Amino acid sequence: MIKPVLISDITVLTPNDATGIDVCSNYYVSVFEGNIIYSGDSKSEAIREIETKSIEKGIPAEYDEYSGSGRILLPTFANGHSHLPMVLLKNTADDMKLEDWLFNTILPREALLKPKDIYYASLLGMAEMISGGTGASSDMYFMSEETARAALETGFRLNLCHDGKIYDDKGWRADPGGLANFKKIYHGAGNGLLQTSLMIHSIYLYPESLYPDLVAEAEESNVYVQVHLSETATEVENCRAKYQVSPIEAMANFGVFKRPCIAAHCVHLDDNDRKILAAAGVTVAHNPSSNMKLASGLCDVRALRDAGVSVCLGTDGSASNNNLDMYLEMRLASFIGKYIRNDPMSIRAEDALYMATRAGYNGIGFSNCGMIRAGMKADFQIVNCDNPSIWPIGDPLSAIVYSTPSSAVESVMIDGRFVKYRGELTTIDFEKVKAETKQSMLSINL
Amino acid sequence: MIKPVLISDITVLTPNDATGIDVCSNYYVSVFEGNIIYSGDSKSEAIREIETKSIEKGIPAEYDEYSGSGRILLPTFANGHSHLPMVLLKNTADDMKLEDWLFNTILPREALLKPKDIYYASLLGMAEMISGGTGASSDMYFMSEETARAALETGFRLNLCHDGKIYDDKGWRADPGGLANFKKIYHGAGNGLLQTSLMIHSIYLYPESLYPDLVAEAEESNVYVQVHLSETATEVENCRAKYQVSPIEAMANFGVFKRPCIAAHCVHLDDNDRKILAAAGVTVAHNPSSNMKLASGLCDVRALRDAGVSVCLGTDGSASNNNLDMYLEMRLASFIGKYIRNDPMSIRAEDALYMATRAGYNGIGFSNCGMIRAGMKADFQIVNCDNPSIWPIGDPLSAIVYSTPSSAVESVMIDGRFVKYRGELTTIDFEKVKAETKQSMLSINL
Repeated sequence: MIKPVLISDITVLTPNDATGIDVCSNYYVSVFEGNIIYSGDSKSEAIREIETKSIEKGIPAEYDEYSGSGRILLPTFANGHSHLPMVLLKNTADDMKLEDWLFNTILPREALLKPKDIYYASLLGMAEMISGGTGASSDMYFMSEETARAALETGFRLNLCHDGKIYDDKGWRADPGGLANFKKIYHGAGNGLLQTSLMIHSIYLYPESLYPDLVAEAEESNVYVQVHLSETATEVENCRAKYQVSPIEAMANFGVFKRPCIAAHCVHLDDNDRKILAAAGVTVAHNPSSNMKLASGLCDVRALRDAGVSVCLGTDGSASNNNLDMYLEMRLASFIGKYIRNDPMSIRAEDALYMATRAGYNGIGFSNCGMIRAGMKADFQIVNCDNPSIWPIGDPLSAIVYSTPSSAVESVMIDGRFVKYRGELTTIDFEKVKAETKQSMLSINL
Repeated sequence: MIKPVLISDITVLTPNDATGIDVCSNYYVSVFEGNIIYSGDSKSEAIREIETKSIEKGIPAEYDEYSGSGRILLPTFANGHSHLPMVLLKNTADDMKLEDWLFNTILPREALLKPKDIYYASLLGMAEMISGGTGASSDMYFMSEETARAALETGFRLNLCHDGKIYDDKGWRADPGGLANFKKIYHGAGNGLLQTSLMIHSIYLYPESLYPDLVAEAEESNVYVQVHLSETATEVENCRAKYQVSPIEAMANFGVFKRPCIAAHCVHLDDNDRKILAAAGVTVAHNPSSNMKLASGLCDVRALRDAGVSVCLGTDGSASNNNLDMYLEMRLASFIGKYIRNDPMSIRAEDALYMATRAGYNGIGFSNCGMIRAGMKADFQIVNCDNPSIWPIGDPLSAIVYSTPSSAVESVMIDGRFVKYRGELTTIDFEKVKAETKQSMLSINL
């Protein structure tokens, strides 16, 4: 069991119930067996909570103290849309048209990937995410068993996709048994670190007949669904030509939104699309870097939020970003939110931070994370402000969203365990991961 | 005198004469008395150049060797538009309308600044710039003597503005004597570290009669001019109402572009504006973060470059960014360049890096910097790729523009002197600067 921790005299930023952010100076945060058991301004109460729990458990009331002076504590980020193993394709396919990018560079390389490649690439992606304060992700790729193994060893939260279809002599068909088995093994694994989803890649990739069967499969296994949705103008155009409706309507008609659903992108929408998403409770994962880099367009987050849609933030894969850095996405989401509405108040710092934290955790299935409050899981990051980017701190909320480089993340705790501690990753052997991923990269370099 | 340096076995990225970037693997770079004297693939030639120069100077042929394994060497960045001392206003005025921001927050605080505040704030801004690989800037503020002192002590290149006007009982008038004196003291100071400019703030701030006199003053002193130009739609609208022409035409009519001119922003332009800028050889400083954050609009860099205008990159001041990080600006310039033209090839990695380096140095008056080539000044940065953001490296050019966090900058050399060496600032006492700027910030916190 991990020793209790007391974080002392720190500035806390926490999402609140009104989808805003509370800024609390000189706070104390107590962690006991994976949970936050106190967050408030009294050191004696913070200690008393640890003592009370220790007595209940019949263990010595000992704890490690972490001085928060000159530091800011906030929830870890929940990345709403990633493809972790694509770190292997980082900086190999840039400044290209989407078709070139996908068909001539990405897919031929992906076809060569082996389980071991996926495993080490997942570790590398988690190393980058954790280094930059991300504690969870909603990930969509294949050979997910390897990514699950990496997450459980690392102590990283994932809502992880299974590709619940198989190909045989009748063509593509749903594979309910495979999904049920995947869920049985991984759902809730690692003391609740893992959630499971069915991947329904997009409206353009599958034969029409497959969608209803996939929905039935997800219903049967009672899992989340992850989709790409309305990412490009071409996708919307082709969907209207084929189905006479928008991709959102088509997915709704297939019943996809009966499941808890994480929809990535949602760039090209109309008011009716936004109404459907809001009514269905779909969480939209906004990926500003990827959308801009691939010249897909910009998602109007303000319009989505005004329509009552919950929006979180994602990085997308490393081949279209090329980072897994939620600090960059927060800043960019705020900037393009301001630009797109010609209004510097459209997406404020607190909106961006809420999206990157609480909205993300809620949307991807970890509603017990994303707030700094007694009773929540102990998933948080500590930022050291002792660097020229943040100094002088000014408003801590502005400092986190607009000025903080991910390198200022000093420590990261997930489920009560420090996975980054004072600058060092504690659960990933980065030298080993570097060597293995270099080999993988060479092996797929066509 | 500083010992010669040999950088061994490193990947070099250098702008070339065709406004592109050359990527050179396993290169050697020799530095002798502030200059690059060799850049090529032969270690023995690199050493021979140092020996030859040492013999010429009658000194021992000794040098320090810096292993470049796993590292990338590229020119330092030239920041085309900054207001260094505004670091004191960082994270104090965000998510506000421009008028609120300027008149209710920024100006009242600036009115309280004293020379000592400007001096330490300049050092803090330079600490942030150097940390992130920036080696020069084109800076516009007041009490520039303090910023000049900070730059000379730090060993930082600046093209520095003088506010060449004074106010007396007849109102505002040009002050040629003040500018001449400023130029005399600072132009070329510190072995050429400093260049001097006249500030002509904008088309909206001064009485009409002042512009011709300021131009005459700049002509007389033979200095650069720095202006803000066509930043907002309101500026263009008001200018057309007052002068019947666009801000670019108005400045041209006043003769401003007869001087070498650095024009910040240039967001709202038409084809005629672009023609004027190209014909006059004006350098445009594009500030993507600031333009988006203040919801000013987006500069169409592709259109400017197609029209033959040289475009460099700037951060603007910390109160409207809130960083002085050229890595963020490069990435964002590429992203919004792709978005605005709906074309992922519109602003490629090499375009962004060229803008951030060679175009910037040329534009702000340091044409002997911004390339890694024998005969150029030894102004460069070394990036360590041993971190999860960059690994696996892939294409080094993509890695630098799309994946590199400024924290990966390991060393920075300006004029042959390491101002950051293996992670440490060598010429700035950051602890002292922190303490002083905190005091300054408190003293202007209304």
